[in-house]
Amino acid sequence: MERIFINTPSTKSEILVGHSWENLSELLPETGVVIITDDNILKIYRKKFPDFPVLSVAPGEKSKQLSVIEKLAGGLLELGIDRTGFILAIGGGVVCDIAGFLASVYMRGIRCGFVSTSLLSQVDASTGGKNGVNQGSVKNIIGTIRQPEFVLCDPEMLLTLPDDEFLSGLSELIKTAIIGDRVLFEFIENSRDEILNRNTELLTMLITRAVNFKSIVVTEDERETGLRRILNFGHTYGHAIELERGIMHGFAVALGMELATAFSKKMGYLSADEADRIVRILNAFNLLDNKFIPAEDMEKLIVHDKKKAGSSIHFVFAEGIGQAVVRKMAVSEITDFYREFRKK
Amino acid sequence: MERIFINTPSTKSEILVGHSWENLSELLPETGVVIITDDNILKIYRKKFPDFPVLSVAPGEKSKQLSVIEKLAGGLLELGIDRTGFILAIGGGVVCDIAGFLASVYMRGIRCGFVSTSLLSQVDASTGGKNGVNQGSVKNIIGTIRQPEFVLCDPEMLLTLPDDEFLSGLSELIKTAIIGDRVLFEFIENSRDEILNRNTELLTMLITRAVNFKSIVVTEDERETGLRRILNFGHTYGHAIELERGIMHGFAVALGMELATAFSKKMGYLSADEADRIVRILNAFNLLDNKFIPAEDMEKLIVHDKKKAGSSIHFVFAEGIGQAVVRKMAVSEITDFYREFRKK
Repeated sequence: MERIFINTPSTKSEILVGHSWENLSELLPETGVVIITDDNILKIYRKKFPDFPVLSVAPGEKSKQLSVIEKLAGGLLELGIDRTGFILAIGGGVVCDIAGFLASVYMRGIRCGFVSTSLLSQVDASTGGKNGVNQGSVKNIIGTIRQPEFVLCDPEMLLTLPDDEFLSGLSELIKTAIIGDRVLFEFIENSRDEILNRNTELLTMLITRAVNFKSIVVTEDERETGLRRILNFGHTYGHAIELERGIMHGFAVALGMELATAFSKKMGYLSADEADRIVRILNAFNLLDNKFIPAEDMEKLIVHDKKKAGSSIHFVFAEGIGQAVVRKMAVSEITDFYREFRKK
Repeated sequence: MERIFINTPSTKSEILVGHSWENLSELLPETGVVIITDDNILKIYRKKFPDFPVLSVAPGEKSKQLSVIEKLAGGLLELGIDRTGFILAIGGGVVCDIAGFLASVYMRGIRCGFVSTSLLSQVDASTGGKNGVNQGSVKNIIGTIRQPEFVLCDPEMLLTLPDDEFLSGLSELIKTAIIGDRVLFEFIENSRDEILNRNTELLTMLITRAVNFKSIVVTEDERETGLRRILNFGHTYGHAIELERGIMHGFAVALGMELATAFSKKMGYLSADEADRIVRILNAFNLLDNKFIPAEDMEKLIVHDKKKAGSSIHFVFAEGIGQAVVRKMAVSEITDFYREFRKK
């Protein structure tokens, strides 16, 4: 088992990779624990849950709403959970987002920990303390940044994951390799089949490297005022594609990375050879489908994202494989490149 | 003008007492500001508001709901407020509670400052960073602790306050004197008429003393794990009375202080003479009405509060005038004393 620590001004947090979640109780207080999960996870794992009351939400993004938070807070009250209580999230990104937010506002903050059940949340979403709910189509507009006491990533749990969810998570793993870990990139290049066979030992190693990198970034810049922005590689175009096409996050980010890679090459940050390697790895895992959205829609959605993020867009370029650089770009530069790319 | 600083692990905050709110713009950024207020304040002061967009809520406790937070977040989005935005609350406790919570979760936290318009919020509620909304009848169950950048207390604004709201605020001022400031207590004893005439200079001095004491307590114990509990003097019985009778917070706390004073005398923390002085000052401002709720209801409500607050009740006793002491008490001890008091 690997342990990775995050120390930020607000809290200490520990990510445990390869820890069997059946030994969870060592990490929990004896009383006052409530489990928050979704109905899918409940079906698969309920029998193995530790013996605490459970509040379950409907699976999927539609549960990320303030009205769900309100309902869960009512559930905690009914269970008599007070300021000494502990919320244990067992689930993927959505469950951890909801439970993390709830824990940071219920009675002005109670303890929490996560068992991260999807590859996407193990390699990315559950590390870093960002949580929140949506408002209409605007994602994560209401939330906080607060580290859980622990995040437990048990790769055995990935064996029950549907294929598309597994691949979607791989996309964020590849992103991490591109922006911060050349060795990880090479591991992924060289072990395609073992990864797709979900070799648990290999996955433990890959997830550990990804979490390790992310923990360094988050420790340095918890509130995303600088360095943390590099984690958005592929996300400027990717978000727009995700919104427009309604596809899974990782697949949209993969297309966004294909675009950002070509853009990085054009700007001279990547050699033609490195750009080819990135596209090749994305194709090796069937993450690209060449279905790009109309340029006018891309423009509208990027302007919309810009409104959310402030006056200029911090675009992330790959600078060779294993490093990234952030540049302020005008919307027109980003959309012009999109038009140019689509014409090819 | 008096300036009082609060430095906690999370933020720096500044309380300005006697600062004219018409000089507010010095404290604000030039762009990205949104004012949050209620319809009453809007009616009285709109013309004097600085020139920024306004989102207004219905006055009173019923606006402290997650659905109102959601609506306001939608309003901020429509106004194009991003992570660099600034929320300016202009109002009493309810407005500051809502706006403070919104600022701590909108886009995972944006800047905020308060113009505190009621005596209750100037002497107590707006200092200390607690914010939040209710769930049904359970108060402040969802919220955070986060200091605003500034709290501006302009006693001139108290001139438009209805009498009962003014008296309700005085009750918390007297509470502060009892638990922490003997000199303040004597000032209040000796200047009843000037206070009731709302002499601005005198009020500035009294509010400054109260804020000063609270800021020391909050700096020492932001998250209420020890010292901060003394601020709850009169609140154990007071909360129950407030819930049952639906009277204003300060009047309920005054009755709670009458009870806690008698209890403190019985426990040997207060002399008969000191207890008399406390009751006399509460009567001098017409804060007591001798209408106590049935003992069974008191018991039910205290058990309910206990559920919220954890396994034991930290009861606050006055230890002479100007000092307080917290003791863990069994529910039965607290309700037994209530029965005994009512028989007299």
